[in-house]
Amino acid sequence: MLTNYPKLTDAEIGSTLSRPLLVSAIEENTDRNGKAFVKVTLKDGFSDVTALMFATSAADLEARLIKPNTVVDADLAVSEYQGNKSYKVSNLAPAADKLLSVSDFVKLPPVDLDVMYNEIISMLNSAANNYENTHTPLSDLAIRILTKYKDSYMTSSAAISMHHNLRGGLLYHSYRMVKASNALCNVYTSLDRELLLCGAALHDIGKIWEYSTSEAGDAAFTSSGILFGHLYMGASLIKGFSHVKDTAPYHSEKVQLLIHLILAHHGTQEWGTVACPAIPEAMALHYIDNLDAKMYMFEEQYETLSAGELSDKKPFGLENRVYKPKYELQS
Amino acid sequence: MLTNYPKLTDAEIGSTLSRPLLVSAIEENTDRNGKAFVKVTLKDGFSDVTALMFATSAADLEARLIKPNTVVDADLAVSEYQGNKSYKVSNLAPAADKLLSVSDFVKLPPVDLDVMYNEIISMLNSAANNYENTHTPLSDLAIRILTKYKDSYMTSSAAISMHHNLRGGLLYHSYRMVKASNALCNVYTSLDRELLLCGAALHDIGKIWEYSTSEAGDAAFTSSGILFGHLYMGASLIKGFSHVKDTAPYHSEKVQLLIHLILAHHGTQEWGTVACPAIPEAMALHYIDNLDAKMYMFEEQYETLSAGELSDKKPFGLENRVYKPKYELQS
Amino acid sequence: MLTNYPKLTDAEIGSTLSRPLLVSAIEENTDRNGKAFVKVTLKDGFSDVTALMFATSAADLEARLIKPNTVVDADLAVSEYQGNKSYKVSNLAPAADKLLSVSDFVKLPPVDLDVMYNEIISMLNSAANNYENTHTPLSDLAIRILTKYKDSYMTSSAAISMHHNLRGGLLYHSYRMVKASNALCNVYTSLDRELLLCGAALHDIGKIWEYSTSEAGDAAFTSSGILFGHLYMGASLIKGFSHVKDTAPYHSEKVQLLIHLILAHHGTQEWGTVACPAIPEAMALHYIDNLDAKMYMFEEQYETLSAGELSDKKPFGLENRVYKPKYELQS
Amino acid sequence: MLTNYPKLTDAEIGSTLSRPLLVSAIEENTDRNGKAFVKVTLKDGFSDVTALMFATSAADLEARLIKPNTVVDADLAVSEYQGNKSYKVSNLAPAADKLLSVSDFVKLPPVDLDVMYNEIISMLNSAANNYENTHTPLSDLAIRILTKYKDSYMTSSAAISMHHNLRGGLLYHSYRMVKASNALCNVYTSLDRELLLCGAALHDIGKIWEYSTSEAGDAAFTSSGILFGHLYMGASLIKGFSHVKDTAPYHSEKVQLLIHLILAHHGTQEWGTVACPAIPEAMALHYIDNLDAKMYMFEEQYETLSAGELSDKKPFGLENRVYKPKYELQS
Amino acid sequence: MLTNYPKLTDAEIGSTLSRPLLVSAIEENTDRNGKAFVKVTLKDGFSDVTALMFATSAADLEARLIKPNTVVDADLAVSEYQGNKSYKVSNLAPAADKLLSVSDFVKLPPVDLDVMYNEIISMLNSAANNYENTHTPLSDLAIRILTKYKDSYMTSSAAISMHHNLRGGLLYHSYRMVKASNALCNVYTSLDRELLLCGAALHDIGKIWEYSTSEAGDAAFTSSGILFGHLYMGASLIKGFSHVKDTAPYHSEKVQLLIHLILAHHGTQEWGTVACPAIPEAMALHYIDNLDAKMYMFEEQYETLSAGELSDKKPFGLENRVYKPKYELQS
Amino acid sequence: MLTNYPKLTDAEIGSTLSRPLLVSAIEENTDRNGKAFVKVTLKDGFSDVTALMFATSAADLEARLIKPNTVVDADLAVSEYQGNKSYKVSNLAPAADKLLSVSDFVKLPPVDLDVMYNEIISMLNSAANNYENTHTPLSDLAIRILTKYKDSYMTSSAAISMHHNLRGGLLYHSYRMVKASNALCNVYTSLDRELLLCGAALHDIGKIWEYSTSEAGDAAFTSSGILFGHLYMGASLIKGFSHVKDTAPYHSEKVQLLIHLILAHHGTQEWGTVACPAIPEAMALHYIDNLDAKMYMFEEQYETLSAGELSDKKPFGLENRVYKPKYELQS
Repeated sequence: MLTNYPKLTDAEIGSTLSRPLLVSAIEENTDRNGKAFVKVTLKDGFSDVTALMFATSAADLEARLIKPNTVVDADLAVSEYQGNKSYKVSNLAPAADKLLSVSDFVKLPPVDLDVMYNEIISMLNSAANNYENTHTPLSDLAIRILTKYKDSYMTSSAAISMHHNLRGGLLYHSYRMVKASNALCNVYTSLDRELLLCGAALHDIGKIWEYSTSEAGDAAFTSSGILFGHLYMGASLIKGFSHVKDTAPYHSEKVQLLIHLILAHHGTQEWGTVACPAIPEAMALHYIDNLDAKMYMFEEQYETLSAGELSDKKPFGLENRVYKPKYELQS
Repeated sequence: MLTNYPKLTDAEIGSTLSRPLLVSAIEENTDRNGKAFVKVTLKDGFSDVTALMFATSAADLEARLIKPNTVVDADLAVSEYQGNKSYKVSNLAPAADKLLSVSDFVKLPPVDLDVMYNEIISMLNSAANNYENTHTPLSDLAIRILTKYKDSYMTSSAAISMHHNLRGGLLYHSYRMVKASNALCNVYTSLDRELLLCGAALHDIGKIWEYSTSEAGDAAFTSSGILFGHLYMGASLIKGFSHVKDTAPYHSEKVQLLIHLILAHHGTQEWGTVACPAIPEAMALHYIDNLDAKMYMFEEQYETLSAGELSDKKPFGLENRVYKPKYELQS
Repeated sequence: MLTNYPKLTDAEIGSTLSRPLLVSAIEENTDRNGKAFVKVTLKDGFSDVTALMFATSAADLEARLIKPNTVVDADLAVSEYQGNKSYKVSNLAPAADKLLSVSDFVKLPPVDLDVMYNEIISMLNSAANNYENTHTPLSDLAIRILTKYKDSYMTSSAAISMHHNLRGGLLYHSYRMVKASNALCNVYTSLDRELLLCGAALHDIGKIWEYSTSEAGDAAFTSSGILFGHLYMGASLIKGFSHVKDTAPYHSEKVQLLIHLILAHHGTQEWGTVACPAIPEAMALHYIDNLDAKMYMFEEQYETLSAGELSDKKPFGLENRVYKPKYELQS
Repeated sequence: MLTNYPKLTDAEIGSTLSRPLLVSAIEENTDRNGKAFVKVTLKDGFSDVTALMFATSAADLEARLIKPNTVVDADLAVSEYQGNKSYKVSNLAPAADKLLSVSDFVKLPPVDLDVMYNEIISMLNSAANNYENTHTPLSDLAIRILTKYKDSYMTSSAAISMHHNLRGGLLYHSYRMVKASNALCNVYTSLDRELLLCGAALHDIGKIWEYSTSEAGDAAFTSSGILFGHLYMGASLIKGFSHVKDTAPYHSEKVQLLIHLILAHHGTQEWGTVACPAIPEAMALHYIDNLDAKMYMFEEQYETLSAGELSDKKPFGLENRVYKPKYELQS
Repeated sequence: MLTNYPKLTDAEIGSTLSRPLLVSAIEENTDRNGKAFVKVTLKDGFSDVTALMFATSAADLEARLIKPNTVVDADLAVSEYQGNKSYKVSNLAPAADKLLSVSDFVKLPPVDLDVMYNEIISMLNSAANNYENTHTPLSDLAIRILTKYKDSYMTSSAAISMHHNLRGGLLYHSYRMVKASNALCNVYTSLDRELLLCGAALHDIGKIWEYSTSEAGDAAFTSSGILFGHLYMGASLIKGFSHVKDTAPYHSEKVQLLIHLILAHHGTQEWGTVACPAIPEAMALHYIDNLDAKMYMFEEQYETLSAGELSDKKPFGLENRVYKPKYELQS
Repeated sequence: MLTNYPKLTDAEIGSTLSRPLLVSAIEENTDRNGKAFVKVTLKDGFSDVTALMFATSAADLEARLIKPNTVVDADLAVSEYQGNKSYKVSNLAPAADKLLSVSDFVKLPPVDLDVMYNEIISMLNSAANNYENTHTPLSDLAIRILTKYKDSYMTSSAAISMHHNLRGGLLYHSYRMVKASNALCNVYTSLDRELLLCGAALHDIGKIWEYSTSEAGDAAFTSSGILFGHLYMGASLIKGFSHVKDTAPYHSEKVQLLIHLILAHHGTQEWGTVACPAIPEAMALHYIDNLDAKMYMFEEQYETLSAGELSDKKPFGLENRVYKPKYELQS
């Protein structure tokens, strides 16, 4: 994210704005008089806006080398339309600064991807059970999977909409859940920390194949996602990794239970779980998953609300309007 | 089933009965005065009754070589208790006829197990698609599985309670579903017959591991059943069989779709499906499964109702009382 | 349907199209500048499109003898709007070919209406029970009803939206259900074929009064439909036909059960059934009804999807997106 | 009801009781030692008790002319069993007072049956619309039905369990609903009083055929009840009465709406309504029906609770325990 | 409401209209060519319309002293757009008649506010129990609250949407419920009239703080409404008033029960009740509340429907389309 | 709990047991022959058993000074009945050791009550926000309440059945939730720790009045519990404490939000929440509450299961059978 330019959402009505942006989508339209114009989706790494560009067409833009996923220098004017900001493009050209790339304009989680990935690996290692050489720790199985699919794991979105629907969303969701699992094992000391942390790290791993996440962070269902769902695909993946060569085998019951954690993390049939939780770690994982999803939804709402304000409606996934308190927390 | 003896359910109140029976369970009790008596579950291949035997104990019986799964010669008296028949055992001894075995006393489906198994294989073969040697038919995959697990497939129950909860219940349920699938493919001609028949034959194959069925036909959950469910286990099984040596490979998309059929056959999340049907064969399978289960429930009710009679209550799994018409069908 | 003209849905973006079409609706609009234009709904017998016609008004068109249900010669240009095809009318005139009529442009089921009607009657006759002259077969009752209401039965839609919402939809739905019932009676041999086939043929007969279907195939609720529903109206109709003169009477219990089949075919209270199924024929009818409806929904989706494609969203009435496999069935 | 004898429920533990009672059911049992004893259900017009009678059998009693529906002179001893009263019969003989009959021992509503019936007719007459001789009032249709089925209408129960499950329950339920409808028409003045009162009087008329009510007031489902339900049967009945000879016809739309009221009085599909209310009278009837049922449930609870007491559990049909206040209303 | 001008809804398509109106909202828009225009919400005391005004802006209007809540003289032209009336403003100026005020243009209930308020107080007084000076009547508590919050109670809306969403809606809803409660106490004579009437008058009193109702009658949620809900706030209010000085205390159990009535009036958890009804008065209040809400919904529909017409769809809050009968009631 | 005696649950079938126990309930019964015997509920501080004592009566026992809540010396014989242990009392006498008291025999949480109470106070103090003397911390409000109601808070059960239904259950539940809240605030750092911890400590405080907990730890509903529920009572309590004398006032918005946390902790209307969570702390509290309840249910199950065993059925409150793994955690 580029921090030395004004954000799209900070531009005032009536002002203009010139800065590099990412074109993530182009849609051609025809007005009532048959004249073409285009709607361009532009990203600055914090949010998306859709801007109108008149007297042009998708073909025109393509002739000027502007397609989806092109970094451009844009001149925009901000006006008001139906109580909201409306953006009009006056100029659009491939960015002069050739060092800029797509990743400079894509929304990412608030924690660095590498930091999160490394911290997950580190927590998994710390949680590894001591099997006194009779077995290879279950943490090792989780780490092998995360190592093999590191790239996808770090960039996949965690949802089409709802929560954590951004590039790196899967990682961010998994990261906070591993941390929460770790914290709760200190309270509920009879929980198997290794099992729960492996479950937290891998519970949504099947989403790597359930969604395809574009470079710009937008997720779409794959046919595998529709036919199988991420619970089955995640469980299948673990089964495929459950045999090791050259070292002690995994503890087979714990592998079974890890598969159960994946199959059971949606908690109830109403939410599409494959199995309902039969052990406390599976139940804990289910609540930690829900809690993290809901915390994300509140955080997203709080980004757009002022102090003392109510959201306009119940956000999708919540059952009440969101209220942002007037007071500030002293840290 | 032995047909040359009076059935347990045919014995009149006030009569006595002497015949070979299977002891399937023994439970010791103590009356209010501290005297032991036992409740013996007896099977004649059509139904179960629980009979009281006074002035004895489980240890007594064991000393006389009578344990669960023993074939015995029994003398019973039938009286009335709370409007129902009550059975009292006066004599119980290991059966004189040593040729009798457990299988003579276990309830079985109305169609011969071998006939059903062979007919399934035969219908699968007939439905095999012509891949012109580029692929091995999907039917072959189903048949390989049914061949390997033939014994379990032929004897497993299809439920703890509900429907098809008898030895061979899984086979009977699968058999009628394969036949119904075959019949419906003639009406809905765009359905892929090979895919649907493989799905019908294998949809509940995971129940082999979800339940353990005793020799006497009683089913109990296994821990795998609780942790994974039969949808996941069935799908996993197919995945494990999806690679062949020495012949043309299976059509990989059809294998995927067969796995989808297994994962989707419960139809809706409310009924614990892993995926909801995304192709018409999956939807058809779901309805054929339900239809067969409900037909079984009605057949079971009709066995106990007289013409013109209503069931006492809504049977479990149905939403109304069952009515048996007064008229007889002319065949 | 006219097959010697290009279909509306086959026209490429950027092309033009000239052919006879049916105007099924005209809606006048005013643009922001106060100029009138019209939206014209045009049918070619396969689908509907809504086309814009500028610089005209409904009154203009009427003056040129173009109203709803007029067959016209139309010149259309196809452009793109928001990723979809957009149609603009350049010329519209009453069709030169005076032999064309509304019915040439209305979507119909894939099987000929007369063929279906006759086949239903024939299957009902074949299923007639042999009452040895003590009673008139129940099939006769069904056939009397279908004879009396033949016109409505052949043209009524089976739904406002959802499934079989086209002219002849009721007939097509009933036809396939009678065939499926017939096929399943060979598997579930204790079902009363005459009863089930009569139920399949008549289950939605009340829709003749629940909806009014326009000549162009569009259905709308009637006030009777809202006040009574088609279950009650269908059952009432059968009651009204249950007495015959000059021949042996119907078997009165079977008439009662046929009424039950009509009242129970929605299966559960959740789906608005009047009674829940109390006999196996009623339960079978319920599943056959559902199965046929779902098969239609998949067929409709498959018409618009390419091989290997997912539907954009869950179609109304289904619980997952629809997937169209990549492979083709060999027939 | 006989008021000059102590009530069954007033007898103290440890006391004995001698009085005439109705035997409504006899059930034979055998104790663990094989000795027969009987459970006799006895009614005093206020409640039922089940009493044990040792050293006898159903055959013994029958030989002494004691069968279900016999009025007897009984000697009972009241003891405690599991915190509740337990009744033992020491003597049982056909009642000496030959003037006593079954009806002296059957629970009836708190208002006289004839008074209620006559008041319903009178309110219907008062509500008759003035059609100025163009039509016969709808009230007349309702009164004709109530006249024809007067006996059944006055004695039928209104439920198997739940509410108003007593001889005359249908009448009592209808009576209070007609009164409540009348009262609410003064508040909601745009309601059609004639229509609503006819609906209130007839809404459950189909229960006459849905249940069979024994002379002792116990209701059981009939097969018609199971196959059709009382909504359909009630609506059908009205349809059958909707044509009159020798006088002006009924207002046909009002007859239709009255049928709608019957079909819609269960309000929502969840409660098995045939149609959902489409006019305000149908909605009002639905709420009045519910209100009356709930009031009955509270009244039943209050009969058994002391001031300041909570019910042991949530009564069936209510969603909370019932509390009986400590204070007394001053009247 | 001004009755000497044509109503907005009575204006024919093609006509023009000049009359004083209330501007309740102004929204600025930009057309595709970047020209500003405004949408003005106008009220005449019976309904709202949104009219377009071209070639102007919110700033323009404000410069001419036209803002939300301004009474104006307006010239409107009525045309058709998509089958509905469309309104265009040609002239807008602050009203010449300076005696007109906002309240002349706001929709109010059909009964005068003062009449309703006084009648409620009067019914509460009549229902006051006779405590023979040991206690102050509960009615007094209700009247003290209504006296203190009279202004808010008389003007608050009773809903954001759904029912009684107009200035004075809370009062109108409460008024009819008090009347209905009074009427039903004559039928269900064991109900405590004082308690039920206090409950009816106060059940929604918490809505005064749950919503803020604008002078023009539009309601919006407050943050207290979102955080607490009106059930809790109403119960809390009563608790705050439950102690009196200088007179006999209230009957404390009745105060508790009144609080229960407030907490329980939503009936079931599904509808967000705090407690489920535990006494008959709470249950009665729940049904009376529902009945009144539904009656309002039907009345609103009937205002817009012609005789014999169906509503276009199921209105929000009802489960069927609404039918308005063809016949007229003779009064 | 007395640890120097064999536990009731450890006694083998066939053995006898002599030890001090608490009689918590006595129920008199009569056998079929009219002989009295009693069922005595006995507690050893770990579990309850119901033992039969023949040839005696409640009056007999009372004459020997044995009533509910008497500590006794008991001689028991353990036999088998229907597969379970059955206990028969041969001797029962008031305990010789007069130092024993009820509390020695009551099941308590696994953590000392004082330790838990003090740790809650300490965590609340640590979480107190720094208001720089403008306000008194919210923690102070929570601590004032816990101080005033310390006795009840420490002894109340948290449920009738379900979870934490033991003496001290409310404290144990609150304690672990405060700890879990504290731990999760380190992961979700934008949560207001003071608010969340106050919510965790007080969320079920209303249960003190919702239930009455006997000295032996058994809970029963109070009428306040039925009429108001613990959410309302808890919120009301906080409101009553929200004003302080002699120090800076509480931060009023935080008091409001704390009340919201109490009203919202059941999460959804389905679970009887008064408000749905509108701030993240309310949502977090809801999940922490659920998580702790479920962890308790698993812990209870694990106490009765052997390694590798499944529970017999789905425990109430869980949606699957519980599985206890075979392996042991290495600590």
